[in-house]
Order: sequence, then C-alpha cells, then structure tokens
Amino acid sequence: MNIREEALRVHCELEGKLSIESKMKLNSREDLSIAYTPGVAEPCKEIAKDKEKVYNYTMKGNTVAVVTNGTAVLGLGNIGAEASLPVMEGKAVLFKEFGDVNAFPICINSEDPEDIIKTVKLIAPGFGGINLEDIKAPECFYIEERLKNELDIPVFHDDQHGTAIVCLAGIYNALKVVEKNLNEVKIVINGAGAAGTAICKMLLKAGAKNIVMCDINGALVEGDNALSEAHMELAKLTNRNKEKGKLEDIIKDTDIFIGVSAANVLKPYMVETMAENAIIFAMANPNPEIMPDLAKEAGARVVATGRSDFPNQINNVLVFPGIFKGALECRAKGITDEMKLAAARGLADMVKEEDLNEEFIIPNALNKEVADSIAESVRRYADRKMK
Amino acid sequence: MNIREEALRVHCELEGKLSIESKMKLNSREDLSIAYTPGVAEPCKEIAKDKEKVYNYTMKGNTVAVVTNGTAVLGLGNIGAEASLPVMEGKAVLFKEFGDVNAFPICINSEDPEDIIKTVKLIAPGFGGINLEDIKAPECFYIEERLKNELDIPVFHDDQHGTAIVCLAGIYNALKVVEKNLNEVKIVINGAGAAGTAICKMLLKAGAKNIVMCDINGALVEGDNALSEAHMELAKLTNRNKEKGKLEDIIKDTDIFIGVSAANVLKPYMVETMAENAIIFAMANPNPEIMPDLAKEAGARVVATGRSDFPNQINNVLVFPGIFKGALECRAKGITDEMKLAAARGLADMVKEEDLNEEFIIPNALNKEVADSIAESVRRYADRKMK
Repeated sequence: MNIREEALRVHCELEGKLSIESKMKLNSREDLSIAYTPGVAEPCKEIAKDKEKVYNYTMKGNTVAVVTNGTAVLGLGNIGAEASLPVMEGKAVLFKEFGDVNAFPICINSEDPEDIIKTVKLIAPGFGGINLEDIKAPECFYIEERLKNELDIPVFHDDQHGTAIVCLAGIYNALKVVEKNLNEVKIVINGAGAAGTAICKMLLKAGAKNIVMCDINGALVEGDNALSEAHMELAKLTNRNKEKGKLEDIIKDTDIFIGVSAANVLKPYMVETMAENAIIFAMANPNPEIMPDLAKEAGARVVATGRSDFPNQINNVLVFPGIFKGALECRAKGITDEMKLAAARGLADMVKEEDLNEEFIIPNALNKEVADSIAESVRRYADRKMK
Repeated sequence: MNIREEALRVHCELEGKLSIESKMKLNSREDLSIAYTPGVAEPCKEIAKDKEKVYNYTMKGNTVAVVTNGTAVLGLGNIGAEASLPVMEGKAVLFKEFGDVNAFPICINSEDPEDIIKTVKLIAPGFGGINLEDIKAPECFYIEERLKNELDIPVFHDDQHGTAIVCLAGIYNALKVVEKNLNEVKIVINGAGAAGTAICKMLLKAGAKNIVMCDINGALVEGDNALSEAHMELAKLTNRNKEKGKLEDIIKDTDIFIGVSAANVLKPYMVETMAENAIIFAMANPNPEIMPDLAKEAGARVVATGRSDFPNQINNVLVFPGIFKGALECRAKGITDEMKLAAARGLADMVKEEDLNEEFIIPNALNKEVADSIAESVRRYADRKMK
C-alpha cells in the first residue's frame, strides 16, 4: 500500500475524519421537548445557579479542544490554520479511539500568542481541557504558561509533555534492560526546541543528574551569551561540567542519546564512542537521527524511534488520551509534574518484567488498554494530592 | 411525563447530548498511518498549496459553529456561557438529526461584541458556517453584520432569520387559507427585538406594504425622538400612515397579528376589532400572546403559536438545518435575502394544496423531509445566482 496515495484517497472520501453525533434520537414531540425547548431550560437554570453543574448536565467534562495555529505542524512547519486541520482531526480521532474522550479541532488563524491565549480563554466554558498542538517554539511555552495560570481546566502542550512522558517511560525500561540508574547516567539530548526542553525538564524531575543539551551549534553551556533566553535557562539546569563542543564531541561516554532533531545527524562513528550498553532514542520523524540497524552495529544496546515499522516506537498516542481521560475523570484543575511522572511510571509498568527486553521497552501504540491504565495512574495521584 | 424532571434526568444521565465520533477505526498500523502520521501530512500539504482544498479533505465543509455568549438564552435572559451550553448542544442535536450537518457549540465568555467577532473570525478556519444563537439585541445585529462582511462563510443569526423565514412560510399559507394578498393586508408585529425586526424586514422583502411595529410603548412612528436608533430605522420602513397609540388602538382592522413579545398581551377584545378572517401568530414562548381557543372565539380564522401542543407550530427547526445544509452543499459564501425567501417559499410549498387548512399551514416540526427540501430550494437559488 502506498500510504501517501491511500491517505489522500481516504481523506477525500471521508470529507473529514470526525462526525458530531447526537446521543438522543428525535422521534417524538417529547424527545424534542427534552433535547430542546422547553425541557432544556431546566439544566440551563441549574447551571446558572451553580456553574459547577455544567459538568453534570453537558459534554464539557469529557470534551477537549485540540488547539493549534498551524505554525509547527508535523515536520511541515508553518502551514497555517486550514492546512493543520487534517492533523487536528487525526488527533481527535486518537483521543476518541484510545481514550473515549471527545476532542474537537480549534484551528486559530493567528500567529500572535495573545490572540491564541484570548481565544482559548473565551471559548473555554465549553471544554473540560485544552490540548495545545503544533504551535511553534518559543511561543508555545508562553501560551501554555499563561493558559495554565489563567484557566481552571487542564492545559497540556502535547508536543512537549506527551513526548516527554512517553520518552521517560521508555528510558525507565531501557535502563532496566541495561541495568543502569537514571541518577548516574550521562544523557545527551540533541534538539533544544519544545520537545527537547520538555524531555530535559522531565528527566531532571525524575532524578537525572547529568544531562547535556545540544542544538545545531553544539552543547548549551552556561555563560554562552549567544544563547537565547530559553536556552540560557536550560544551560543552567544542565551540563554542570560545562562541556563544550559539537555533538560528536559531547557524545563521548554518553549512556543515553535522545534525539528530537533531524534525520541522520547521529553517525555510527559517534555511537562507537558512547559508553557500554548505550541507549539511543532517535525520535526524528519520519527519518530518525540514526537507523536502528546502524546504531546496533555501532554498539548500541537499546534503540527506539518514532516509527511504527521498528521495535520500540515512542509515540505520544500512548500518553495523551490517558492523561486527559484521567484528568477529566477526577476534574483535576491542571496537570502537574507529579501527574506526568505518575503517567510515565504507569506506562513503563505496563511492560511486564518477563516481557521486557531490548526490542520491547514500551507498549505497542495500538494497545487500547494503555489509556485506561495511564488514566488510573493519573487519577490515583490526583485523588491523593489535589482534592 | 413531567418534562422538567425528565429533562434534568436525561441531561444528567447523558452528560452531554453530543458525541464526537471517529469515522475511522484504528485497528492496524496502517490505519494509524493514514489517520495520523505519516499519511496525514499529504492532505495537509495539498491544503497548504491550495486553501480551498480544505473542503475536500476535512470536515469544514459540513460543520457549523453554534456560537453564543449566553446573553439571551431562551426566555431565561443573560445566564452566561456555561449555562447556555445545554441549549447549544440541543441546537447541534437538531442540526444533525434534521440536516445531517455537524454542529459544535462555541460558548464565548464575554459580553463585548468585539470579543465575539474576533473569536469567531479566529476560529473560522475549521468551520463551514456560523450559526449565531441567543445573543442579545442590539449587539446581535452588529455582530452578525460585521461577521457577514468579514468572513467568507455563511453567517446566520437563527433567532432573527430562522424565525423570520418560518414565520413568512406560515404567513404565505395562512393568506392562501383566508384568500388575501400579502401586498394588501395590514400587519401588526408586536415586539421589536431581534426576531420582530427580522420578521418585519423579511415581510417587506416579500412584498408586504403595510406593517406597523409595536413595542411595549406602542406603535413605532417616524419622528418619535424617544426611539432608539434601531427603532427609528424600523419606523421609517413601516407605518407609512404614522399611526400612533398602544397595541389596542393599532390592532383595529389589522389582518395579521404577529407576536414575538410576551404572554397574554393580546386580549380577546382586541382580536374582536381586527379585520374579518384575521390571522394571529402568537409566538411568545412558552406562553403565547393569546391562547388559540380564546383567539378563535374572538373571531380569528388562523392561529399559530410556537408550541408543539397546538396546531401550526412556528418552529425554527423547520428552517436552520435545511438552510445550512443547502448553503454548505453549494459552498455559498453567505446567506442572502433571496436564499431566505427561497427557503420560505420552499417550506410553504411543502404543505400540499389539498392538505392546507386553518389547522395545517406549516409542516410538522418532526418532519425530516423538510430540511432536504429547503436545502434544495436554497441550493437551486444559490446555484443560479451566486456562482
């Protein structure tokens, strides 16, 4: 099957991958009187008296807005609000099929962060959560921060935190395979955009002590005045040995390479200089930083990619449906670092000890039990801490 | 059945009347590759090259935003964005069940018209049409006008135009029953808000010559400096005989009374002063301006209300699903007066000559053939004139 042609054909045939269906059939005058006037006035009045009742009488409590402005869509870049719609519909499909969560695409026609923030705040009454998607860095950080502070429903930028959670789950299990400890290993993250930043912060929260962030110019080092503000902040949190140089220098003796950068930037000769039992997460899409067979030949022990045609696929779909399902079910006001860590541990634990090996560190992306399990981890944590 | 209790029970049980469903099942790696990455990139690229292709590859072309700010919800007044959600979900249910159109509630948390306008414009990329709902006058006029001018998709304030179209359809058929002509009759419209204004303008477009608008202070008369700007404009378009006085004075010798005002304001003694074969549309909800039996006893020949438990229910659901279905199907850039008149004629014509009588001037609100028929009228007109 040619995926490109098939994708165009299917999208054209369906004219949209979502359908908004009524849960009520309207076959009698009574049906109409309940779904609409005059009966519908009753839940309205109840909510007008007590706003929290909107969770009892409407779809709000199980509905997420998938919000983008189309500025960083897949690997396609800034293609605009209209062109991002197929991806946002796809995301909503995943929300429903894996998490049984209603999700609706909101494609905002503006590159101004203030417009995004204001629009989302204004339409928030109808949604139980906000999933930010494919908004370019650094605007995405500011937008998420503001919305988290100013809304009382969960706000989650999946490109950052979804990626970070599934990556951490994979790292937990890869470390079990190679029998190393997170707080002792050296980790290089190549790519210091939205995903790399979130992965870095998540690994630090999880206990990692020795991380070096690299971008196209090499390692981020504290004191380098050429760095952006965001990168200066990262440099202070990482690279305590102040290593300087390009990836090929920094990679030496590294235990874990995490790539969220570009195809083929990690060469076999670099892998050869890594520590014994090296772990490589080459997550660039569609072509990874290094192909798994080359990485293995060069000495890597565990290799993961973003692709479904190799073992160990690091795919956000393992996380966001369950995260939102759990957060919505317990009406969490936000998604805390602790909830994210609980999700990562829950995801890692879904691979049973006896099944765990180099080629199986993370559940299959199509495993529909994952979302419920993550939701339970999130909910259990939230129930304990937030209520 | 106690409608109030049953409505609360059903709303609580359903937790929202809508479900966002995926049209694709995700059972294999291939399914995932088509619905989401990498396949989904293909329709994105096509739309990025040619924005119009968004209609081919996404749900935009069959999806309407039901937009409110909750300032004039049913007869409940300004109850806010959250409390309006059950009504907006109900509206979306009607869109789907009667018109097979996807509709999604957008409840905007602001009373500032500029916020509504900006929000709707920013989220418009994902929608094929905008149905404005339950926004109070006079803001609703300004918001609709701006959005009609500034968007290239249909914008329709149902409280105005949906009501006006179904009312006109009923008037067409009531006039056939009493064998009078629209351009010769005297019409009094009691209530000069959003619905009354739209009905007045629609009747004028349809050929009515003698309309007097009344509000709580009596007839709107040109030259009355106490009138609001909107009412001054209406006064110039109507009441060419400059009749002054309260409803009880103006109603004398009137052929048609149209009420979009309040319960029981039309008294039997007033009906007695109307012309022979009087027509009364008493559309206040839930209690009409006069009860049908009292109106008949006082000499009215045709009586319509907004209620489903009396004959001749004037219900917007007869119109908006078909209007949008037709406009979306032909990708009309807007909904013109001519399209609205075509819809009114199409709706009236659905009552066959041989079935038409005092008690049956308008199709039943549950008749699911109506939307297709109206859609065809709208589409036929638009095909002829707009393309």
